Amino acid sequence: MGKKADKYIETHAWSIVERGFHKEKNAVSESLFSIGNEYCGLRGYAEEGAAAPSLQGCYFNGVYEWSEKETETAYKGIIRRGHYMVNAADPIKTEIFLDGEKPDIGESDLLFFERKLDMRSGLFTRSYAIKTGGKEVRLTFSRFLSMTDTRSLYQRIEVESSAPVSLGMYLGIDFATKHWGRAGRWQKVFSHAEGTAAQIVGKTQSTGQFLACGQELSFSGGAYTLAAEEGALSAGSRILANVEKKFTATKRVACYADKTGESGGTMPEVAPQKSFEEALAENVRYYDKFWAERDIAIEGDEENQQGIRFCIFQLGQTYHGAFPTDNIGAKGLTGEAYSGHAFWDTETYCLPYYLFNDPAAARDLLLFRYHTLAQAKERAKMLDCKGACYPIATLNGHEACDLWQHASLQFQPSTGVAYGIRHYVNVTGDEEFLIGYGMEMLLEISRFLLSRGEYGADGRFGYFCVMGPDEFQMMVNHNCYTNYMAKKTFEYTVECFEKYGGRVHLGLKEGELAAFSACAERMYIPYDGERALFEQHDGFFRLPHIEVKDIPAEDFPLYHHWSYDRIYRNDMIKQPDVLMLMLLHSADFTMEQKRANYEYYEPRCIHESSLSPSVHSILASELKKEDEALKFFGFAARLDLDDYNRNTSEGLHTTSIAAAWLNIVYGFGGVRSDGTGLVISPSIPSIWQRYAFRLKYKGRTVLVDVRKGRAVITVEGEEIRAIVCGREEILVGTREFIL
Amino acid sequence: MGKKADKYIETHAWSIVERGFHKEKNAVSESLFSIGNEYCGLRGYAEEGAAAPSLQGCYFNGVYEWSEKETETAYKGIIRRGHYMVNAADPIKTEIFLDGEKPDIGESDLLFFERKLDMRSGLFTRSYAIKTGGKEVRLTFSRFLSMTDTRSLYQRIEVESSAPVSLGMYLGIDFATKHWGRAGRWQKVFSHAEGTAAQIVGKTQSTGQFLACGQELSFSGGAYTLAAEEGALSAGSRILANVEKKFTATKRVACYADKTGESGGTMPEVAPQKSFEEALAENVRYYDKFWAERDIAIEGDEENQQGIRFCIFQLGQTYHGAFPTDNIGAKGLTGEAYSGHAFWDTETYCLPYYLFNDPAAARDLLLFRYHTLAQAKERAKMLDCKGACYPIATLNGHEACDLWQHASLQFQPSTGVAYGIRHYVNVTGDEEFLIGYGMEMLLEISRFLLSRGEYGADGRFGYFCVMGPDEFQMMVNHNCYTNYMAKKTFEYTVECFEKYGGRVHLGLKEGELAAFSACAERMYIPYDGERALFEQHDGFFRLPHIEVKDIPAEDFPLYHHWSYDRIYRNDMIKQPDVLMLMLLHSADFTMEQKRANYEYYEPRCIHESSLSPSVHSILASELKKEDEALKFFGFAARLDLDDYNRNTSEGLHTTSIAAAWLNIVYGFGGVRSDGTGLVISPSIPSIWQRYAFRLKYKGRTVLVDVRKGRAVITVEGEEIRAIVCGREEILVGTREFIL
Repeated sequence: MGKKADKYIETHAWSIVERGFHKEKNAVSESLFSIGNEYCGLRGYAEEGAAAPSLQGCYFNGVYEWSEKETETAYKGIIRRGHYMVNAADPIKTEIFLDGEKPDIGESDLLFFERKLDMRSGLFTRSYAIKTGGKEVRLTFSRFLSMTDTRSLYQRIEVESSAPVSLGMYLGIDFATKHWGRAGRWQKVFSHAEGTAAQIVGKTQSTGQFLACGQELSFSGGAYTLAAEEGALSAGSRILANVEKKFTATKRVACYADKTGESGGTMPEVAPQKSFEEALAENVRYYDKFWAERDIAIEGDEENQQGIRFCIFQLGQTYHGAFPTDNIGAKGLTGEAYSGHAFWDTETYCLPYYLFNDPAAARDLLLFRYHTLAQAKERAKMLDCKGACYPIATLNGHEACDLWQHASLQFQPSTGVAYGIRHYVNVTGDEEFLIGYGMEMLLEISRFLLSRGEYGADGRFGYFCVMGPDEFQMMVNHNCYTNYMAKKTFEYTVECFEKYGGRVHLGLKEGELAAFSACAERMYIPYDGERALFEQHDGFFRLPHIEVKDIPAEDFPLYHHWSYDRIYRNDMIKQPDVLMLMLLHSADFTMEQKRANYEYYEPRCIHESSLSPSVHSILASELKKEDEALKFFGFAARLDLDDYNRNTSEGLHTTSIAAAWLNIVYGFGGVRSDGTGLVISPSIPSIWQRYAFRLKYKGRTVLVDVRKGRAVITVEGEEIRAIVCGREEILVGTREFIL
Repeated sequence: MGKKADKYIETHAWSIVERGFHKEKNAVSESLFSIGNEYCGLRGYAEEGAAAPSLQGCYFNGVYEWSEKETETAYKGIIRRGHYMVNAADPIKTEIFLDGEKPDIGESDLLFFERKLDMRSGLFTRSYAIKTGGKEVRLTFSRFLSMTDTRSLYQRIEVESSAPVSLGMYLGIDFATKHWGRAGRWQKVFSHAEGTAAQIVGKTQSTGQFLACGQELSFSGGAYTLAAEEGALSAGSRILANVEKKFTATKRVACYADKTGESGGTMPEVAPQKSFEEALAENVRYYDKFWAERDIAIEGDEENQQGIRFCIFQLGQTYHGAFPTDNIGAKGLTGEAYSGHAFWDTETYCLPYYLFNDPAAARDLLLFRYHTLAQAKERAKMLDCKGACYPIATLNGHEACDLWQHASLQFQPSTGVAYGIRHYVNVTGDEEFLIGYGMEMLLEISRFLLSRGEYGADGRFGYFCVMGPDEFQMMVNHNCYTNYMAKKTFEYTVECFEKYGGRVHLGLKEGELAAFSACAERMYIPYDGERALFEQHDGFFRLPHIEVKDIPAEDFPLYHHWSYDRIYRNDMIKQPDVLMLMLLHSADFTMEQKRANYEYYEPRCIHESSLSPSVHSILASELKKEDEALKFFGFAARLDLDDYNRNTSEGLHTTSIAAAWLNIVYGFGGVRSDGTGLVISPSIPSIWQRYAFRLKYKGRTVLVDVRKGRAVITVEGEEIRAIVCGREEILVGTREFIL
């Protein structure tokens, strides 16, 4: 592992605070102090500009461009053109002049600096004080996105001075933003600025989408003059005021993204109807409810308490099921890395959090896949296959990954969708979804898996030339994860069709179910019974051995320091395929198998994927390896707060931090939900006094409150059968269990 | 196979003739009528232009550019910038006006057309007659490159008219040529044109090479006026003449390629010293000697007689050892496909022809690898390895292949160089070369093979994640060809160092020889003893089976019609790895093994490589499968003449046609030279009356003259031990053997 914390954020239970300006970490802070409401995300940048590392970024879920250049390739099945989420307008473009001089947190001597994100309101504030011409001036910038009226954004700037100061300001909306440091591609189709109002509509170049933004300004604290201003790609107003003591500017912004281009670029309302104060109060009410339902309390570990709340807060900011066309990008709406693409992470890492907290949001996540079934079918055709193959990376349903070795060889997105459907139905009992949407996806995924699989010369079915989720074994046969997940997909598809019918309605062909069953039955799962070891792929056990712990630290990340082919030719893995399988299908494997495989694969894993440690922690918990469980948990909850991977500057690891929730609930909480019923088997890390979480499960709410030696489980609603601490129990009301 | 001849070339023993203009085949003819002298190659294009498919091309061995664009990749070991042979100046840029009108073979009604290449002089002529304004005008264009004064090119244009005609001409040198249809990158650094002389010097953009061309014109047949003309990238003269009956223009050109840029672009002599007639007579003398030594006579099969002579002629035009910095591009100097790159074809397919005909040229070919040892060592470093890794494709010694799956996974260029050294020493007995150059290469190649190979968990040595020569199994372990060739390389390296010493001089390290020996000994060669079958790679026998013969014809070429990954996941092969091994190391394998493997692998091969059929034909000959031997030979000798692959328009398959020579000498002649002595075991195809070839072998010349039922072998020089028709014999003088 060898990952180390880089700590500069203060530890508070409900807020994130940077005290004193950490110039060199400015871009990290911009990610950490991101605000979002699923519709829009805004990095925590200094809107007035700062001479410090920075990535000004504002993103709208689903607003994107096709890549400018086509991939040059003669080969079939490789995508020609990708797509990426664009940096949108800067809706809070600001300039400030104090007696004609620009304050700059990167250059001025700061008497005081604080950046703060309040997780109980979503309010982000940044305050600092400087001396200018003998005067002490304090500036406070606040902003928040409405969680209920998603198109509304509020900004406030307060200027307090120890002596009268002349204040110049520009407050506007600016489409001349950069994307990954390069000039953007926005065109202006309309703008108008007059008095305190300004409106501007921008258009994407290749997708014909529109983004309309309108602002309305108000001021208090003294007289001012105002002049509206329209630029080539901007609109706003210039303000001049003489500040006696304190002057406040408040800006209400409304943003409307027309993702289909249907509006033709016509304007929406100019600004939100609600005032700054009203909207903020509404956000507080929203978060009161949110935390009442979602909070995980940890006593005795303030850092992880803050960490897990930050994870839950950011998951909510990124996605809460507001729009079924939205998905969860690997970096959420907090940066341009991974191009805003959603990966298999959505169903595999994020879905459980939504399943157990907000089943409607979980359903919407799955509906994203339903709405992009046509693109997945097109992709399967590109691969000379039938059915539907879900993309490795996507914003719009089309495959966006131009590396054939990933896009053409990895199938965990497709089996992940099938798993997600099953998991969703297991936990919610929502058969209507299954019949209305799920079964069509299951059928098309099974068709793909049937057409892509082959019978080897030895009569065993499986997948040749594939890459499992572990990307360090590139082009192998009979990857255990792929084969096993396909087998389970076939079985579940057959089970659903047998149980719910739908053959005619969904166009099931003669013999299809039989073919699925035959493949499932003859699926080759490489396994060494003597050692109880699953072989990651056919031949893995015969690969040259490498001592992962002997690889010099300076060789990491290996992609940058090792010849590309060298990564692939030994028994080292990047993330755990077999262990992942044992987590997803926990009920299928014995404790002996789990132990044997954990002990075999863990030392071979370099944990280069941020998703790896949580899986190990959860398995270690189950195997009562408490020290290891805690060691691997170490960075899950504070992955970004402590910048463990040293790349939080590029954006938060949004899908990875979902694994922090998994790590507590599945790991320490011992929850499993892959079998027919709910399993709860809590343990408590030695450093914790208490932790508690709640789950929604088939219409009930289950509260799990764990202290040293005992767990109290409360079921709100009807009684429920569950396996608790290894014994079948009927849970109703409040019951206490001795651990 | 399913390859069909597309015949339009007349069958003549010593010439290639196109009678009547085949407009749609014009680009094919341009390739077939290419002339070359290793220094320079000129396609058989109509210098005055033609409204027909055309690729005007003139190439200088070793004159190239670096690619304009860098490959965008984050991965290590993938080259960032390739390089390619450029289309050079058109040294015979011509315009013709007859009474003010341009004749055009693509548009005019032709009374007569003939294009002819004389293989006994290298003279290319093109004649045609048209009617213009009631007059019948006959035009004859001749050109040839001097084989002895390689910088000299001659052009002659004869205009004969039935009635006086006004003739306008432009004769010049033009650097405004296209490369693959795109504008070229030449810059002019100097030009001067005056009277009958013109000079121009061009410079490449990225490599700083110079190409200087000078022309000198002379005329006969009447009065004319002349005006020199310099263009942006050209220099030449305009001529106006009134042709009474016949007017002749003769142009002598001298081209000087400064490949290192040392000259700074200064001019060479303006034109060749020798006259057209003198130089042509010298070429005739050159070819008299050439054919006396190289000819393969075939009686009873005029088409293959022409075919094999065309192959030998083109091999000589492409390479005859004039410069040790030259190599043999896959298309020779006849087109832009494959970017002028040399591949493993050089040592594996071409070297035997040179070895047995012109050992000095063979030595020079190997010296190309010696002179580029530094680049091969640099490449090994890029792959995190030691020693020297020879490139998949190169002009200048640097790897030019930007597909990592080939450049990083295929090692037959390196083992091929080692094999070539051994083969050269075997056939020539040139120990001085071995000690002076060969052993250093062997040591560095063995170091590479040692560092790239690994011991599997089962203790067997071999190569993981490789591609053999068969490119339809991409990333496999223990490829039989790779492992076996590496084993033989180790063994030969150890043998040489033990026999010739050189340890200190070549910096051999303690234990290196022992390590080579250990790897050779523990090298895993996948083999099924029961069936006497070598497994192409570990696991090949368990791959899904596909009936190659059932693949629809319209699916070919598969690279264009099948999803890229689909090609790799079954037991289909593109070209024969195991059979190739059995040809290269014939003495190591029993007839039973050869038969078993031939019968197993042949039906699995789609022969998509033009190198495949000859290998099969040779093996089939050895196995007395006469029909199959003849079937596979079918297209070897006339691959380009009959445009079997329908892509001769892009250039000749220069390295593939070397396999035609192999096919006759190794196949029907039954020659083997991989063991300790010479093997000759002739058979004769039923349709032939007689065939005869000669070999140089350890200072002797061996003539093999085969008729029905008997072979006459004559040795010029000292006696020699050989295995003839399976029996050990001492050959001296002339001996007859009954077949």
